[in-house]
Amino acid sequence: MKTRIAFQGEPGAFSQIAALRFAGADCIPAPLPTFEEVFISVQNGKNKYAAIPIENTLHGSVHENYDHLLKYNLPIRAETFVRIVHNLIAPPGVRLADIRRVYSHPVALNQCRHFFEDNPQFERTPFYDTAGSVKMVTGEGMRDAGAIASVEAARIYGGKILKKSIEDDRENFTRFVLLEKPKRGSPYPKPDPKVRFKTTVVFTTRNIPGALFRALSAFSLRDISLTKIESRPLRGKPWEYLFYLDFMGHAEDPVCRKALGHLAELADMLRILGCYASAG
Amino acid sequence: MKTRIAFQGEPGAFSQIAALRFAGADCIPAPLPTFEEVFISVQNGKNKYAAIPIENTLHGSVHENYDHLLKYNLPIRAETFVRIVHNLIAPPGVRLADIRRVYSHPVALNQCRHFFEDNPQFERTPFYDTAGSVKMVTGEGMRDAGAIASVEAARIYGGKILKKSIEDDRENFTRFVLLEKPKRGSPYPKPDPKVRFKTTVVFTTRNIPGALFRALSAFSLRDISLTKIESRPLRGKPWEYLFYLDFMGHAEDPVCRKALGHLAELADMLRILGCYASAG
Repeated sequence: MKTRIAFQGEPGAFSQIAALRFAGADCIPAPLPTFEEVFISVQNGKNKYAAIPIENTLHGSVHENYDHLLKYNLPIRAETFVRIVHNLIAPPGVRLADIRRVYSHPVALNQCRHFFEDNPQFERTPFYDTAGSVKMVTGEGMRDAGAIASVEAARIYGGKILKKSIEDDRENFTRFVLLEKPKRGSPYPKPDPKVRFKTTVVFTTRNIPGALFRALSAFSLRDISLTKIESRPLRGKPWEYLFYLDFMGHAEDPVCRKALGHLAELADMLRILGCYASAG
Repeated sequence: MKTRIAFQGEPGAFSQIAALRFAGADCIPAPLPTFEEVFISVQNGKNKYAAIPIENTLHGSVHENYDHLLKYNLPIRAETFVRIVHNLIAPPGVRLADIRRVYSHPVALNQCRHFFEDNPQFERTPFYDTAGSVKMVTGEGMRDAGAIASVEAARIYGGKILKKSIEDDRENFTRFVLLEKPKRGSPYPKPDPKVRFKTTVVFTTRNIPGALFRALSAFSLRDISLTKIESRPLRGKPWEYLFYLDFMGHAEDPVCRKALGHLAELADMLRILGCYASAG
Protein backbone atom coordinates (compact mmCIF):
# COMPACT_ATOMS: atom_id res chain seq x y z
CA MET A 1 0.00 0.00 0.00
CA LYS A 2 1.25 3.50 -0.84
CA THR A 3 1.84 5.74 2.17
CA ARG A 4 1.75 9.52 2.17
CA ILE A 5 4.75 11.42 3.52
CA ALA A 6 4.42 15.14 4.22
CA PHE A 7 7.19 17.72 3.85
CA GLN A 8 7.51 21.50 3.68
CA GLY A 9 8.18 23.09 0.30
CA GLU A 10 7.49 22.56 -3.38
CA PRO A 11 7.87 19.18 -5.10
CA GLY A 12 11.60 18.72 -5.69
CA ALA A 13 12.63 20.44 -2.43
CA PHE A 14 15.54 18.86 -0.55
CA SER A 15 12.93 17.62 1.96
CA GLN A 16 11.44 15.50 -0.81
CA ILE A 17 14.82 13.85 -1.38
CA ALA A 18 14.86 12.98 2.34
CA ALA A 19 11.26 11.72 2.13
CA LEU A 20 12.07 9.41 -0.80
CA ARG A 21 15.13 8.11 1.01
CA PHE A 22 13.03 7.33 4.11
CA ALA A 23 10.08 5.76 2.36
CA GLY A 24 11.44 4.58 -1.00
CA ALA A 25 9.39 4.30 -4.16
CA ASP A 26 6.54 3.13 -1.94
CA CYS A 27 5.54 6.64 -0.95
CA ILE A 28 3.46 9.53 -2.19
CA PRO A 29 5.19 12.86 -1.47
CA ALA A 30 2.77 15.38 0.09
CA PRO A 31 4.22 18.93 -0.15
CA LEU A 32 2.77 21.56 2.22
CA PRO A 33 3.51 25.30 2.57
CA THR A 34 4.59 25.42 6.23
CA PHE A 35 6.25 23.17 8.80
CA GLU A 36 3.29 23.50 11.16
CA GLU A 37 0.91 22.22 8.48
CA VAL A 38 3.24 19.23 8.02
CA PHE A 39 2.99 18.35 11.73
CA ILE A 40 -0.79 18.89 11.82
CA SER A 41 -1.32 16.70 8.74
CA VAL A 42 0.36 13.75 10.47
CA GLN A 43 -1.34 14.46 13.81
CA ASN A 44 -4.80 14.39 12.17
CA GLY A 45 -4.01 11.29 10.09
CA LYS A 46 -4.10 12.93 6.66
CA ASN A 47 -0.50 11.82 6.06
CA LYS A 48 1.21 8.83 7.67
CA TYR A 49 4.72 10.30 7.95
CA ALA A 50 6.52 13.64 7.95
CA ALA A 51 10.11 14.31 6.82
CA ILE A 52 11.45 17.48 8.45
CA PRO A 53 14.91 19.12 8.66
CA ILE A 54 16.23 19.62 12.19
CA GLU A 55 19.77 20.85 11.59
CA ASN A 56 22.21 21.88 8.90
CA THR A 57 26.00 21.86 9.11
CA LEU A 58 26.21 25.51 7.97
CA HIS A 59 23.07 26.99 9.49
CA GLY A 60 22.61 25.04 12.72
CA SER A 61 19.45 23.77 14.36
CA VAL A 62 15.99 24.50 12.98
CA HIS A 63 14.51 25.80 16.23
CA GLU A 64 11.02 26.06 14.75
CA ASN A 65 10.91 22.30 14.23
CA TYR A 66 12.18 21.56 17.74
CA ASP A 67 9.30 23.75 18.96
CA HIS A 68 6.83 21.71 16.90
CA LEU A 69 8.38 18.45 18.17
CA LEU A 70 7.63 19.67 21.72
CA LYS A 71 4.10 20.80 20.85
CA TYR A 72 2.98 17.79 18.78
CA ASN A 73 3.48 14.25 19.99
CA LEU A 74 5.09 12.70 16.89
CA PRO A 75 8.07 10.51 17.79
CA ILE A 76 11.19 10.49 15.60
CA ARG A 77 11.41 7.12 13.79
CA ALA A 78 14.53 7.58 11.66
CA GLU A 79 17.17 10.11 10.60
CA THR A 80 19.13 10.74 7.40
CA PHE A 81 21.75 13.23 6.23
CA VAL A 82 21.19 14.80 2.81
CA ARG A 83 24.09 16.57 1.11
CA ILE A 84 22.88 19.90 -0.27
CA VAL A 85 24.00 19.96 -3.91
CA HIS A 86 23.01 23.02 -5.92
CA ASN A 87 22.76 22.95 -9.73
CA LEU A 88 22.19 25.61 -12.36
CA ILE A 89 19.02 24.55 -14.17
CA ALA A 90 17.38 26.13 -17.24
CA PRO A 91 14.35 25.47 -19.47
CA PRO A 92 15.17 23.05 -22.33
CA GLY A 93 16.94 24.79 -25.23
CA VAL A 94 18.31 27.64 -23.11
CA ARG A 95 22.12 27.71 -23.25
CA LEU A 96 24.54 28.98 -20.63
CA ALA A 97 25.37 31.99 -22.83
CA ASP A 98 21.67 32.99 -22.95
CA ILE A 99 21.29 33.34 -19.20
CA ARG A 100 21.11 36.80 -17.62
CA ARG A 101 19.16 36.20 -14.39
CA VAL A 102 19.43 33.30 -11.94
CA TYR A 103 16.54 32.67 -9.53
CA SER A 104 16.67 30.79 -6.23
CA HIS A 105 16.06 31.01 -2.49
CA PRO A 106 18.40 33.64 -0.94
CA VAL A 107 20.12 30.97 1.17
CA ALA A 108 20.93 28.93 -1.94
CA LEU A 109 22.15 32.02 -3.85
CA ASN A 110 24.39 32.79 -0.91
CA GLN A 111 25.77 29.23 -0.89
CA CYS A 112 26.93 29.62 -4.53
CA ARG A 113 28.92 32.82 -4.04
CA HIS A 114 32.04 31.59 -5.89
CA PHE A 115 29.90 30.62 -8.87
CA PHE A 116 28.51 34.17 -9.07
CA GLU A 117 31.98 35.66 -8.64
CA ASP A 118 33.19 33.56 -11.59
CA ASN A 119 30.10 34.52 -13.63
CA PRO A 120 29.45 38.21 -12.97
CA GLN A 121 27.13 38.38 -16.00
CA PHE A 122 24.41 36.56 -13.97
CA GLU A 123 22.05 38.67 -11.90
CA ARG A 124 21.16 36.95 -8.60
CA THR A 125 17.38 37.05 -8.24
CA PRO A 126 15.91 35.96 -4.89
CA PHE A 127 12.85 33.70 -5.04
CA TYR A 128 10.75 32.10 -2.29
CA ASP A 129 11.91 28.49 -2.89
CA THR A 130 14.69 26.58 -4.70
CA ALA A 131 12.44 24.02 -6.45
CA GLY A 132 9.79 26.73 -6.98
CA SER A 133 12.32 28.78 -8.95
CA VAL A 134 12.81 25.86 -11.41
CA LYS A 135 9.03 25.47 -11.67
CA MET A 136 8.75 29.18 -12.52
CA VAL A 137 11.55 29.46 -15.14
CA THR A 138 10.48 26.27 -16.93
CA GLY A 139 6.72 26.91 -16.52
CA GLU A 140 6.99 30.39 -18.00
CA GLY A 141 9.50 29.18 -20.61
CA MET A 142 11.92 32.00 -19.84
CA ARG A 143 14.69 32.24 -22.47
CA ASP A 144 17.22 34.27 -20.46
CA ALA A 145 16.85 32.84 -16.96
CA GLY A 146 18.06 29.90 -14.90
CA ALA A 147 17.37 28.60 -11.41
CA ILE A 148 19.43 26.98 -8.67
CA ALA A 149 17.98 23.81 -7.12
CA SER A 150 18.32 20.05 -6.68
CA VAL A 151 18.64 17.39 -9.39
CA GLU A 152 15.21 16.21 -8.25
CA ALA A 153 13.69 19.64 -9.03
CA ALA A 154 15.21 19.57 -12.55
CA ARG A 155 13.69 16.12 -13.11
CA ILE A 156 10.21 17.04 -11.83
CA TYR A 157 9.85 20.30 -13.77
CA GLY A 158 11.66 19.19 -16.95
CA GLY A 159 14.60 21.58 -16.50
CA LYS A 160 18.04 20.93 -17.97
CA ILE A 161 21.10 20.93 -15.70
CA LEU A 162 23.68 23.32 -17.21
CA LYS A 163 26.19 23.19 -14.31
CA LYS A 164 26.34 20.52 -11.62
CA SER A 165 27.31 21.04 -7.99
CA ILE A 166 27.95 24.80 -7.99
CA GLU A 167 27.78 25.16 -4.19
CA ASP A 168 30.84 26.66 -2.42
CA ASP A 169 30.98 24.14 0.40
CA ARG A 170 30.84 20.37 -0.07
CA GLU A 171 30.32 19.94 3.68
CA ASN A 172 26.78 21.29 3.53
CA PHE A 173 24.51 18.56 4.93
CA THR A 174 21.00 18.73 6.32
CA ARG A 175 19.84 16.24 8.91
CA PHE A 176 16.23 15.15 8.37
CA VAL A 177 14.06 13.09 10.70
CA LEU A 178 11.04 10.93 9.94
CA LEU A 179 8.02 11.40 12.22
CA GLU A 180 4.99 9.19 12.76
CA LYS A 181 2.05 9.17 15.17
CA PRO A 182 2.70 7.11 18.32
CA LYS A 183 1.59 3.49 17.98
CA ARG A 184 0.20 1.34 20.75
CA GLY A 185 2.81 -0.11 23.07
CA SER A 186 6.41 1.09 23.22
CA PRO A 187 7.15 4.27 21.25
CA TYR A 188 10.62 2.89 20.45
CA PRO A 189 11.89 0.31 17.96
CA LYS A 190 12.89 -3.14 19.25
CA PRO A 191 16.41 -3.16 20.69
CA ASP A 192 18.78 -5.00 18.35
CA PRO A 193 22.46 -5.57 19.19
CA LYS A 194 23.36 -5.22 15.49
CA VAL A 195 21.86 -1.69 15.25
CA ARG A 196 23.49 1.47 16.65
CA PHE A 197 20.59 3.47 18.12
CA LYS A 198 20.45 7.17 18.86
CA THR A 199 18.06 8.91 21.28
CA THR A 200 17.01 12.57 21.09
CA VAL A 201 15.85 14.47 24.18
CA VAL A 202 14.97 18.06 25.13
CA PHE A 203 15.25 19.32 28.70
CA THR A 204 15.30 22.55 30.69
CA THR A 205 17.36 23.55 33.72
CA ARG A 206 17.63 26.76 35.69
CA ASN A 207 20.90 28.60 35.12
CA ILE A 208 22.67 27.80 38.35
CA PRO A 209 26.42 27.23 38.02
CA GLY A 210 27.02 23.59 37.21
CA ALA A 211 23.39 22.72 36.36
CA LEU A 212 24.34 21.58 32.86
CA PHE A 213 27.43 19.79 34.14
CA ARG A 214 25.34 17.79 36.60
CA ALA A 215 22.82 17.02 33.86
CA LEU A 216 25.59 15.72 31.57
CA SER A 217 27.05 13.63 34.42
CA ALA A 218 24.00 11.38 33.99
CA PHE A 219 25.58 10.30 30.67
CA SER A 220 29.33 10.63 31.22
CA LEU A 221 29.30 8.62 34.46
CA ARG A 222 27.78 5.78 32.41
CA ASP A 223 30.16 6.15 29.41
CA ILE A 224 27.30 7.15 27.09
CA SER A 225 28.49 9.16 24.10
CA LEU A 226 26.81 12.47 23.27
CA THR A 227 26.51 13.41 19.59
CA LYS A 228 24.78 16.79 20.02
CA ILE A 229 24.37 19.32 22.80
CA GLU A 230 22.96 22.80 22.35
CA SER A 231 21.68 25.40 24.79
CA ARG A 232 18.88 27.72 23.71
CA PRO A 233 18.18 30.69 25.94
CA LEU A 234 14.48 31.11 26.79
CA ARG A 235 14.32 34.87 26.53
CA GLY A 236 10.86 35.18 28.02
CA LYS A 237 12.27 33.43 31.11
CA PRO A 238 15.59 35.04 31.91
CA TRP A 239 18.26 32.59 33.00
CA GLU A 240 16.35 29.55 31.89
CA TYR A 241 17.63 27.34 29.14
CA LEU A 242 16.31 24.66 26.88
CA PHE A 243 18.84 22.00 25.88
CA TYR A 244 18.84 19.73 22.85
CA LEU A 245 20.77 16.52 23.46
CA ASP A 246 21.38 13.42 21.33
CA PHE A 247 23.15 10.39 22.71
CA MET A 248 24.19 7.01 21.33
CA GLY A 249 22.07 4.24 22.77
CA HIS A 250 18.55 2.82 22.88
CA ALA A 251 16.16 4.61 25.23
CA GLU A 252 15.16 1.25 26.76
CA ASP A 253 18.66 -0.11 27.16
CA PRO A 254 19.08 -0.63 30.95
CA VAL A 255 22.06 1.76 31.24
CA CYS A 256 20.36 4.46 29.13
CA ARG A 257 17.16 4.12 31.17
CA LYS A 258 19.15 4.80 34.31
CA ALA A 259 20.81 7.81 32.67
CA LEU A 260 17.40 9.19 31.62
CA GLY A 261 16.03 8.61 35.14
CA HIS A 262 19.03 10.45 36.56
CA LEU A 263 18.54 13.34 34.07
CA ALA A 264 14.84 13.53 34.98
CA GLU A 265 15.82 14.13 38.61
CA LEU A 266 18.10 17.03 37.62
CA ALA A 267 16.00 18.71 34.91
CA ASP A 268 12.87 20.82 35.35
CA MET A 269 11.37 19.34 32.17
CA LEU A 270 12.50 16.33 30.12
CA ARG A 271 10.97 15.01 26.89
CA ILE A 272 12.23 12.07 24.84
CA LEU A 273 11.61 13.05 21.20
CA GLY A 274 12.54 9.66 19.76
CA CYS A 275 14.84 6.68 19.55
CA TYR A 276 15.94 5.40 16.12
CA ALA A 277 18.77 3.81 14.15
CA SER A 278 21.70 6.23 13.90
CA ALA A 279 22.60 7.37 10.38
CA GLY A 280 26.20 8.04 11.45
CA MET B 1 36.39 61.96 15.78
CA LYS B 2 33.85 59.99 13.81
CA THR B 3 34.55 56.26 13.58
CA ARG B 4 33.37 53.94 10.85
CA ILE B 5 31.46 50.81 11.83
CA ALA B 6 30.88 48.11 9.23
CA PHE B 7 27.84 45.83 9.02
CA GLN B 8 26.25 43.50 6.50
CA GLY B 9 23.13 44.66 4.68
CA GLU B 10 21.49 47.81 3.41
CA PRO B 11 21.27 51.01 5.47
CA GLY B 12 18.43 50.47 7.96
CA ALA B 13 19.17 46.75 8.46
CA PHE B 14 18.83 45.43 12.01
CA SER B 15 22.65 45.31 12.08
CA GLN B 16 22.68 49.10 11.73
CA ILE B 17 20.49 49.39 14.83
CA ALA B 18 23.09 47.30 16.69
CA ALA B 19 25.91 49.44 15.26
CA LEU B 20 24.28 52.68 16.44
CA ARG B 21 23.69 51.18 19.87
CA PHE B 22 27.37 50.19 20.11
CA ALA B 23 28.86 53.40 18.82
CA GLY B 24 26.18 56.04 19.39
CA ALA B 25 25.77 59.15 17.26
CA ASP B 26 29.54 59.24 17.02
CA CYS B 27 29.68 56.69 14.24
CA ILE B 28 29.41 56.46 10.50
CA PRO B 29 27.55 53.29 9.46
CA ALA B 30 29.38 51.42 6.66
CA PRO B 31 27.03 48.90 5.00
CA LEU B 32 28.66 46.06 3.00
CA PRO B 33 27.11 43.25 0.94
CA THR B 34 28.60 40.21 2.74
CA PHE B 35 29.79 39.24 6.21
CA GLU B 36 33.24 38.36 4.89
CA GLU B 37 33.66 41.84 3.41
CA VAL B 38 32.73 43.26 6.84
CA PHE B 39 35.54 41.25 8.51
CA ILE B 40 38.07 42.13 5.79
CA SER B 41 37.24 45.84 5.99
CA VAL B 42 38.13 45.91 9.71
CA GLN B 43 41.20 43.66 9.22
CA ASN B 44 42.62 46.02 6.57
CA GLY B 45 41.80 49.17 8.58
CA LYS B 46 39.15 50.59 6.23
CA ASN B 47 36.62 50.51 9.09
CA LYS B 48 37.42 50.65 12.80
CA TYR B 49 34.64 48.37 14.05
CA ALA B 50 32.26 45.70 12.83
CA ALA B 51 28.79 44.88 14.24
CA ILE B 52 27.82 41.30 13.37
CA PRO B 53 24.98 38.97 14.46
CA ILE B 54 26.09 35.73 16.10
CA GLU B 55 22.82 34.20 17.25
CA ASN B 56 19.06 34.64 17.17
CA THR B 57 16.55 33.24 19.64
CA LEU B 58 14.45 31.71 16.82
CA HIS B 59 17.13 30.75 14.29
CA GLY B 60 20.12 29.84 16.45
CA SER B 61 23.79 30.52 15.89
CA VAL B 62 25.12 32.21 12.76
CA HIS B 63 27.78 29.60 11.96
CA GLU B 64 29.21 31.65 9.11
CA ASN B 65 30.21 34.40 11.54
CA TYR B 66 31.76 31.95 14.00
CA ASP B 67 33.83 30.68 11.05
CA HIS B 68 34.96 34.23 10.25
CA LEU B 69 35.75 34.85 13.94
CA LEU B 70 38.09 31.84 13.79
CA LYS B 71 39.67 32.91 10.49
CA TYR B 72 40.16 36.64 11.22
CA ASN B 73 41.76 37.83 14.44
CA LEU B 74 39.19 40.44 15.52
CA PRO B 75 38.39 40.18 19.24
CA ILE B 76 34.83 40.70 20.49
CA ARG B 77 34.66 44.01 22.41
CA ALA B 78 30.97 44.19 23.34
CA GLU B 79 27.60 42.48 22.87
CA THR B 80 24.01 43.69 22.61
CA PHE B 81 20.59 42.08 22.10
CA VAL B 82 18.31 43.70 19.53
CA ARG B 83 14.63 42.82 19.55
CA ILE B 84 13.51 42.14 15.99
CA VAL B 85 10.41 44.31 15.46
CA HIS B 86 8.82 44.16 12.02
CA ASN B 87 6.63 46.99 10.68
CA LEU B 88 4.49 47.41 7.59
CA ILE B 89 5.94 50.39 5.75
CA ALA B 90 4.65 52.13 2.62
CA PRO B 91 5.59 55.15 0.46
CA PRO B 92 4.02 58.40 1.77
CA GLY B 93 0.38 58.78 0.73
CA VAL B 94 -0.21 55.05 0.24
CA ARG B 95 -3.00 53.83 2.54
CA LEU B 96 -3.46 50.37 4.01
CA ALA B 97 -6.45 49.78 1.71
CA ASP B 98 -4.28 50.48 -1.38
CA ILE B 99 -1.78 47.74 -0.64
CA ARG B 100 -1.85 44.54 -2.69
CA ARG B 101 1.77 43.27 -2.47
CA VAL B 102 4.09 43.24 0.55
CA TYR B 103 7.86 42.89 -0.04
CA SER B 104 10.48 41.66 2.44
CA HIS B 105 13.18 39.08 3.10
CA PRO B 106 11.61 35.57 3.21
CA VAL B 107 12.62 35.14 6.88
CA ALA B 108 10.80 38.36 7.82
CA LEU B 109 7.71 37.39 5.78
CA ASN B 110 7.71 34.07 7.61
CA GLN B 111 7.95 35.81 10.98
CA CYS B 112 4.73 37.76 10.26
CA ARG B 113 2.56 34.77 9.41
CA HIS B 114 -0.36 35.80 11.64
CA PHE B 115 -0.42 39.23 10.01
CA PHE B 116 -0.77 37.63 6.56
CA GLU B 117 -3.43 35.23 7.82
CA ASP B 118 -5.42 38.22 9.13
CA ASN B 119 -4.85 40.12 5.85
CA PRO B 120 -5.24 37.56 3.05
CA GLN B 121 -5.56 40.39 0.49
CA PHE B 122 -1.77 40.99 0.72
CA GLU B 123 0.47 38.99 -1.60
CA ARG B 124 3.73 38.02 0.14
CA THR B 125 6.60 38.97 -2.19
CA PRO B 126 10.09 37.75 -1.25
CA PHE B 127 12.89 40.27 -1.63
CA TYR B 128 16.64 40.02 -0.92
CA ASP B 129 16.67 42.29 2.14
CA THR B 130 14.24 43.86 4.67
CA ALA B 131 15.58 47.43 4.50
CA GLY B 132 16.20 47.00 0.75
CA SER B 133 12.50 46.30 0.23
CA VAL B 134 11.60 49.68 1.81
CA LYS B 135 14.21 51.38 -0.38
CA MET B 136 12.62 49.77 -3.44
CA VAL B 137 8.93 50.51 -2.73
CA THR B 138 9.62 54.12 -1.73
CA GLY B 139 12.30 54.69 -4.41
CA GLU B 140 10.01 53.48 -7.19
CA GLY B 141 7.03 55.24 -5.59
CA MET B 142 4.85 52.14 -5.81
CA ARG B 143 1.17 52.93 -5.10
CA ASP B 144 -0.03 49.42 -4.27
CA ALA B 145 2.92 47.95 -2.37
CA GLY B 146 4.36 47.89 1.13
CA ALA B 147 7.47 46.47 2.74
CA ILE B 148 8.29 44.84 6.08
CA ALA B 149 11.33 46.19 7.92
CA SER B 150 12.64 48.11 10.93
CA VAL B 151 11.62 51.59 12.14
CA GLU B 152 15.13 52.64 11.17
CA ALA B 153 14.56 51.57 7.54
CA ALA B 154 11.32 53.60 7.41
CA ARG B 155 13.17 56.66 8.70
CA ILE B 156 16.12 56.32 6.28
CA TYR B 157 14.06 55.81 3.13
CA GLY B 158 11.17 58.14 4.02
CA GLY B 159 8.58 55.37 4.31
CA LYS B 160 5.47 55.66 6.47
CA ILE B 161 4.76 53.02 9.13
CA LEU B 162 1.18 51.76 8.58
CA LYS B 163 1.27 48.94 11.17
CA LYS B 164 3.74 48.64 14.02
CA SER B 165 5.17 45.43 15.44
CA ILE B 166 3.46 42.88 13.20
CA GLU B 167 5.85 40.02 14.07
CA ASP B 168 4.30 36.81 15.48
CA ASP B 169 6.81 36.32 18.29
CA ARG B 170 7.85 39.06 20.71
CA GLU B 171 10.69 36.83 21.91
CA ASN B 172 12.67 37.28 18.70
CA PHE B 173 16.06 38.75 19.66
CA THR B 174 19.34 38.82 17.78
CA ARG B 175 22.62 38.94 19.66
CA PHE B 176 25.18 41.21 17.99
CA VAL B 177 28.86 41.58 18.84
CA LEU B 178 31.23 44.48 18.21
CA LEU B 179 34.63 43.57 16.74
CA GLU B 180 37.85 45.59 16.59
CA LYS B 181 41.44 44.86 15.55
CA PRO B 182 43.65 43.71 18.44
CA LYS B 183 45.45 46.57 20.18
CA ARG B 184 48.88 46.39 21.73
CA GLY B 185 48.96 44.83 25.17
CA SER B 186 46.14 42.76 26.61
CA PRO B 187 43.31 41.95 24.18
CA TYR B 188 40.82 42.21 27.07
CA PRO B 189 39.24 45.16 28.89
CA LYS B 190 40.53 46.06 32.37
CA PRO B 191 38.95 43.88 35.05
CA ASP B 192 36.42 45.88 37.08
CA PRO B 193 34.55 44.43 40.06
CA LYS B 194 31.46 46.52 39.16
CA VAL B 195 31.18 45.01 35.67
CA ARG B 196 29.88 41.50 34.89
CA PHE B 197 32.16 40.17 32.15
CA LYS B 198 31.48 37.39 29.70
CA THR B 199 34.09 35.38 27.78
CA THR B 200 33.49 33.58 24.47
CA VAL B 201 35.61 30.60 23.42
CA VAL B 202 35.62 27.99 20.65
CA PHE B 203 37.24 24.59 21.11
CA THR B 204 37.37 21.15 19.51
CA THR B 205 37.51 17.70 21.10
CA ARG B 206 37.47 14.21 19.67
CA ASN B 207 34.20 12.39 20.23
CA ILE B 208 35.25 10.02 22.96
CA PRO B 209 32.57 9.37 25.60
CA GLY B 210 32.85 11.99 28.28
CA ALA B 211 35.18 14.35 26.36
CA LEU B 212 32.71 17.23 26.60
CA PHE B 213 31.93 16.39 30.22
CA ARG B 214 35.61 16.60 31.13
CA ALA B 215 35.92 19.88 29.20
CA LEU B 216 32.97 21.36 31.10
CA SER B 217 34.41 20.17 34.41
CA ALA B 218 37.05 22.89 33.96
CA PHE B 219 34.23 25.39 34.62
CA SER B 220 31.82 23.58 36.92
CA LEU B 221 34.53 22.52 39.38
CA ARG B 222 35.26 26.25 39.75
CA ASP B 223 31.60 27.36 40.00
CA ILE B 224 31.82 29.31 36.74
CA SER B 225 28.44 29.77 35.08
CA LEU B 226 27.99 28.85 31.41
CA THR B 227 25.58 30.96 29.36
CA LYS B 228 25.95 29.13 26.03
CA ILE B 229 27.13 25.72 24.89
CA GLU B 230 26.69 24.33 21.41
CA SER B 231 28.24 21.42 19.57
CA ARG B 232 28.76 21.66 15.84
CA PRO B 233 29.68 18.47 14.03
CA LEU B 234 32.67 18.83 11.69
CA ARG B 235 31.36 16.75 8.82
CA GLY B 236 34.65 16.63 6.95
CA LYS B 237 36.16 15.07 10.08
CA PRO B 238 33.76 12.40 11.28
CA TRP B 239 33.38 12.25 15.05
CA GLU B 240 35.06 15.56 15.65
CA TYR B 241 33.17 18.48 17.10
CA LEU B 242 33.58 22.19 17.41
CA PHE B 243 32.06 23.71 20.55
CA TYR B 244 30.90 27.27 21.15
CA LEU B 245 31.01 28.19 24.83
CA ASP B 246 30.28 31.43 26.71
CA PHE B 247 30.91 31.76 30.40
CA MET B 248 30.44 34.49 32.98
CA GLY B 249 33.78 35.93 34.08
CA HIS B 250 36.79 37.89 32.90
CA ALA B 251 39.36 35.90 30.92
CA GLU B 252 42.13 37.26 33.16
CA ASP B 253 40.38 36.66 36.45
CA PRO B 254 42.63 34.17 38.33
CA VAL B 255 39.91 31.49 38.61
CA CYS B 256 38.87 31.86 34.95
CA ARG B 257 42.53 31.69 33.84
CA LYS B 258 42.86 28.38 35.66
CA ALA B 259 39.66 27.11 34.03
CA LEU B 260 40.94 28.14 30.57
CA GLY B 261 44.30 26.45 31.27
CA HIS B 262 42.45 23.30 32.33
CA LEU B 263 40.28 23.43 29.17
CA ALA B 264 43.41 23.90 27.00
CA GLU B 265 44.79 20.62 28.39
CA LEU B 266 41.60 18.76 27.45
CA ALA B 267 40.82 20.33 24.06
CA ASP B 268 42.60 19.74 20.75
CA MET B 269 42.17 23.42 19.80
CA LEU B 270 41.08 26.36 21.95
CA ARG B 271 40.56 29.99 20.87
CA ILE B 272 39.38 32.85 23.06
CA LEU B 273 37.20 35.02 20.79
CA GLY B 274 36.77 37.83 23.28
CA CYS B 275 36.02 39.08 26.77
CA TYR B 276 33.52 41.92 27.22
CA ALA B 277 30.81 43.38 29.48
CA SER B 278 27.78 41.06 29.52
CA ALA B 279 24.56 42.53 28.14
CA GLY B 280 22.46 40.14 30.27
